[in-house]
Amino acid sequence: MTVKTRLASLHKQVDRALDRWLPSEKTKPASLHRAMRYAVFGGGKRLRPVLCLAAAEACGGKISEAMAAACAVECVHTYSLIHDDLPCMDDDDLRRGRLTTHKVFGEAVAVLAGDALLTVAFEILARTHKTKRYDAGDLVAELARAAGSLFLVGGQVADMEAENRLTKPEELVFIHRGKTAAMVAASLRLGAMTANAKTAKVEAIGKFGESLGLAFQIVDDILDITQTSEQLGKSAGKDAAAGKATYPAVFGIEKSRREAARLTKAARKALEPFGKKADFLHAIADQLLGREN
Amino acid sequence: MTVKTRLASLHKQVDRALDRWLPSEKTKPASLHRAMRYAVFGGGKRLRPVLCLAAAEACGGKISEAMAAACAVECVHTYSLIHDDLPCMDDDDLRRGRLTTHKVFGEAVAVLAGDALLTVAFEILARTHKTKRYDAGDLVAELARAAGSLFLVGGQVADMEAENRLTKPEELVFIHRGKTAAMVAASLRLGAMTANAKTAKVEAIGKFGESLGLAFQIVDDILDITQTSEQLGKSAGKDAAAGKATYPAVFGIEKSRREAARLTKAARKALEPFGKKADFLHAIADQLLGREN
Repeated sequence: MTVKTRLASLHKQVDRALDRWLPSEKTKPASLHRAMRYAVFGGGKRLRPVLCLAAAEACGGKISEAMAAACAVECVHTYSLIHDDLPCMDDDDLRRGRLTTHKVFGEAVAVLAGDALLTVAFEILARTHKTKRYDAGDLVAELARAAGSLFLVGGQVADMEAENRLTKPEELVFIHRGKTAAMVAASLRLGAMTANAKTAKVEAIGKFGESLGLAFQIVDDILDITQTSEQLGKSAGKDAAAGKATYPAVFGIEKSRREAARLTKAARKALEPFGKKADFLHAIADQLLGREN
Repeated sequence: MTVKTRLASLHKQVDRALDRWLPSEKTKPASLHRAMRYAVFGGGKRLRPVLCLAAAEACGGKISEAMAAACAVECVHTYSLIHDDLPCMDDDDLRRGRLTTHKVFGEAVAVLAGDALLTVAFEILARTHKTKRYDAGDLVAELARAAGSLFLVGGQVADMEAENRLTKPEELVFIHRGKTAAMVAASLRLGAMTANAKTAKVEAIGKFGESLGLAFQIVDDILDITQTSEQLGKSAGKDAAAGKATYPAVFGIEKSRREAARLTKAARKALEPFGKKADFLHAIADQLLGREN
C-alpha cells in the first residue's frame, strides 16, 4: 500500500469513528450538534489522529485500540480552530475553503460547539482501553496538559498578544510549541500509551512530535506568504495582514526554511529507537514538509 | 459546628485547593492565568464543590479524597459562567457584584480563560484517587457527560433559542436540567464515587441532586424577579428584559414556588437511604431554598 492510500484509509476510519462518537444532527439541541459536525467534517487533514494511530502501530499496538484517543485529539483540534476563528480572535471567514463555523451558525453557537467538542474529547478518551502501564487518568492528564493554559490555550493568548509588535525568537517558539507542537506531540504520545509503550518510547515519540510540530508550523507560516488563497483553501497573506508573529516575519523565509529542515532532521533522529516500525511516521513527515497547502 | 460554620470551613478548603491546582498569576501567559483566577476567586458560593464533598462524606468517604473532584466541578461551573456572560451570549456586565471576566480582560482572553478552566477541570479530575469500583475514566466520563452537548452546553443553546418566544414546559425542564441540575447531580455523584459508593447510592444521590438542582434554578429565577440588583449582587430583572424562558415566565410566581417546594420534597426523599449521614446535605438544601441571593 502506498503512503497516500494508507493515509486515505486511516482518514476514512477516523471519520467513521468520529461519526459514531458525535451525537447525530437530530439530537437536541439540533443546531449545536449540526455545528459540531459541520466543524469536524469540514475537510480537515486528520493529521493528529493519523499520527496517534501511526504511533500506536510503531509501538506494536493496534489501530483499533488507539482510535478513541485519535478521535479525542481531533475533537480538541477542531474546537481550537472554531474558537481561533471567532471575531474576537483571528476573525476568519474561511477555513479549508468553507465558511467558518460562526459565519454559518452565529457566534454564540460557535463558542458553544467548541466547548462541547472539547468536552466530548475527554468523554471519548475516558472510555479508552486501559493498558498495563496506563489508565484513562494518564491519558486524560496527557491531553489536558497539552490542550491547557500552558500550551494550546496559552499559545493562542501569546499569539494574540504578539500581534503588531516586535517578537523575540523565544516568544515565537512559545507560540508555535503551544499552538501546534504540544498537541502533535500529545497525539503521538497518546497513541504510544494506548500501545502500552515503555516511558522511554513515549518520550522518544513525543520528541519526534515536538520537532515535527514546530517544523509543520513553520512550513504553514511560509505557505501563508508564498501561496494564493485558492491554493491554500483559506485566506492567504492573513498572518502578515494581521501583523502576526511568524517565523518568516521574525527570521525571513530562507532562514525559516533552514530551521524547518533542521527540525525535520531532529524529528527523524528521535525515531531511531523504532527502526523499521517507524517507516510510516517517516513517510508522514515527508508529506508534511513537501506539501503545498 | 453549625451548618454555616461548616459551609464556611469547606468553602475555605476548596479555595485553598483551587489555589494549589491553578497556575500562578505570574505563569506565562500571565493575562490568561490572571483571568482564570479572577473568575474562579470571584465570590462564588462554591455550592457544587461543597455538595461533592458532602456527598463523599454521606457515603462514608473522606473529604480529602473528594477534593480534586470538587475543584474540577467548580472549574467547569466557572468556565460556563464566563462563556454565558459573553456579549454573544447573555451579554452580562456584572457577576456577583463585580465586572464580568470579558469586561476586565477583553472577549478573547475571556473565551480562552473559560477554555482553559474547562480543560484544567479534566486534568485535575484525572489525578483523583481511584477506588475499588471507580477509576479516573469513570469520573471523567461522568463529568464530561454532564458538562457536554446533552446537558450543560446543550442547556445554554436551548436557553438562547427559547428567548422571546412561548416556551413549552418540557423545553423549560430541558434548559434547567442542562444548565443547572445535571452539574449539581454530577457533583454529588462524583463525590459518592470518590467514596467508592455502590451504584444504588450513586444513583440515589444523583436523584437528590437532580431535584435539588431544578428547585435551586426555579428559586434563582424567582429571585431575579423579586429582588433588587443590590440584593442579588448582579443585574436583577435581566431574565425578563431578555425575554428568557423561566419558570415564573411560563407558570407564574406562585406555581413556581409550589414546584420548587415539590422538588425539594422529592430531593429529601432521595436521601432516605443515607439516614443520619445525610444531615448535612439536608441542611444545605434548607439553605438553598431559604436564600435571598
